[in-house]
Amino acid sequence: MTLPPNPALLADRFRTLRYDAAEDAVILLNRAKYPLAVAYVTCRTVEETARAIEQMIVQGGPPLAYAAGLGLALAHPDESSYRTAAARLLATRPTADDLHHLLPAALAQALQALAAGADPKQAILAFVNGEIERGNQVSQACGRHAARLLTDGDRVLTHCIAGAALCWMLWIAKHQGKAIHLYATETRPYLQGARLTAQSAVEMGIPCTLITDGMPAHLMSQGMIAKFICAADRITMDGHITNKVGTFQIALAAHYHHVPFYVLGYDGPDPATPSADQIEIEWRDGREVLYLAGQRVAVEGIDALYPAFDITPPHLISGIVTDRGVFPAHRVGDYWQQQAPR
Amino acid sequence: MTLPPNPALLADRFRTLRYDAAEDAVILLNRAKYPLAVAYVTCRTVEETARAIEQMIVQGGPPLAYAAGLGLALAHPDESSYRTAAARLLATRPTADDLHHLLPAALAQALQALAAGADPKQAILAFVNGEIERGNQVSQACGRHAARLLTDGDRVLTHCIAGAALCWMLWIAKHQGKAIHLYATETRPYLQGARLTAQSAVEMGIPCTLITDGMPAHLMSQGMIAKFICAADRITMDGHITNKVGTFQIALAAHYHHVPFYVLGYDGPDPATPSADQIEIEWRDGREVLYLAGQRVAVEGIDALYPAFDITPPHLISGIVTDRGVFPAHRVGDYWQQQAPR
Repeated sequence: MTLPPNPALLADRFRTLRYDAAEDAVILLNRAKYPLAVAYVTCRTVEETARAIEQMIVQGGPPLAYAAGLGLALAHPDESSYRTAAARLLATRPTADDLHHLLPAALAQALQALAAGADPKQAILAFVNGEIERGNQVSQACGRHAARLLTDGDRVLTHCIAGAALCWMLWIAKHQGKAIHLYATETRPYLQGARLTAQSAVEMGIPCTLITDGMPAHLMSQGMIAKFICAADRITMDGHITNKVGTFQIALAAHYHHVPFYVLGYDGPDPATPSADQIEIEWRDGREVLYLAGQRVAVEGIDALYPAFDITPPHLISGIVTDRGVFPAHRVGDYWQQQAPR
Repeated sequence: MTLPPNPALLADRFRTLRYDAAEDAVILLNRAKYPLAVAYVTCRTVEETARAIEQMIVQGGPPLAYAAGLGLALAHPDESSYRTAAARLLATRPTADDLHHLLPAALAQALQALAAGADPKQAILAFVNGEIERGNQVSQACGRHAARLLTDGDRVLTHCIAGAALCWMLWIAKHQGKAIHLYATETRPYLQGARLTAQSAVEMGIPCTLITDGMPAHLMSQGMIAKFICAADRITMDGHITNKVGTFQIALAAHYHHVPFYVLGYDGPDPATPSADQIEIEWRDGREVLYLAGQRVAVEGIDALYPAFDITPPHLISGIVTDRGVFPAHRVGDYWQQQAPR
């Protein structure tokens, strides 16, 4: 099968974030506005890059890690500045593991180049761009394995934005002749489902139906959902997954209704996270729940909470799909013993 | 204990809907806007009343039934007009049972008055106002039984708006010296939680924290919720409850985490509904999910679904609280064998 290029903007990370040499800046697609507006943010300093990550201009485990890595290249080229910059960028978001692997590695590249009298900025950029390229390949391989799990006519529910691997899964399945209908939760408070996931589906010509975050269990009870498939911001070695808050609740509903739940696990579990108690769940500003698209939607006189992620235990998960194949959740640690199948 | 008057506007139905003789109209608090705006809608015809119900100017099982009953009084005073009006008003919303009991009874009052040469309009109004008064008493009795289930310091989660009984439960518990903290789901797409429930809490001085519809399971996993308490639009004789979509999913999460789930059942199960397969779930216009407060929040090129309710089976319910006390869900049919305890 010759696979045409994937038309979804989010399928190729190079199209959403890059270092621009002429500007000496990191250019990021503004995911907080996309696709209702297609706008790019120019980050000229480490601090601007860090704030863009905190404000969810860029989000999703791998993309925000890439942005941070490129942001490191904006630091003044000396060891002290690189260490300070790396610490600042690492402090932006605690939950996804990609950032916490990529950034120390990028810092090591810079320090090594400095010690060798080479250009540290070029070392960082070469490393991070290599990681983006590797991430693109991982996404496509993960999507290909996931597409094998789909059957013609499947109604697939997803939550939040499962990123490039979801795009590849849907695109490959489509070119295998499988008619897939995507059901996307809107994913409050940021509406990633109503915006990012839905837009990717539209770009690929995949029919997409939006529901609120409270509707999955009812649709499952009506036999309307064949599979629930989402991504994970971090996977523990014993098969717990952390993902956008709401995932756990849908996983419970899927388990009750015997709807298979697959996790798009990209390049596998985090070797540094044995189990769930090592995951720090990010609590974002509760005021984000009180507003929608800048408009106050709640009454005055109350407060709000915004835990950004939740944790789903392995017994609720039917399989974790990686670039190296599909693993039972409790055996996902085997990923690191296995070569990529070709 | 002398209980001060309940300051929550929604605790007394007479404050939110009434027939106005001078205007010859039904006056309804606009719940689609309240409390972000306090506005009243004047319905001068049966058709205007029916549309106000369809557009959720008034919502909640008992309130919309009262509005329909008062609307019947606006029909031309002859048998044919009353029958046509009753059919139109009955067709507005299918799921809650109150409408389907109150309206035929109001019609019977009108026809009886016509046959007796009495004033049918006054017969309807006397009957419906009596029902509103009875409903207020039921709400307070139900709230008093529910307050007994609460413990000082409880963090109580609710979904959508559980109406006057929730207000009474919280108000009575407060005056019993129990500090209760209310957690309200925002309840997309109409945000009844962010608006109506939160406002009632503010009016009563009950601390209230807003969360999105995807967060209950995570909060329960963190031990942050003591009880989940909501209302029901219809209760079957075998203990299934139908309520705002999202309830079922939260009930599954509560069951998983051993968090008690109590249903405010007002005046008990519907004798005309033996089990869940007799409940018609209303599907509202999916476009309501694509917009929020008149603003498009989703991309173009997709559709959406809006099942307004879901059904929770009795094995997930810890108890159904009525004006006659608390029943195990599977024994809720006993309500009709039991006198109100005093």
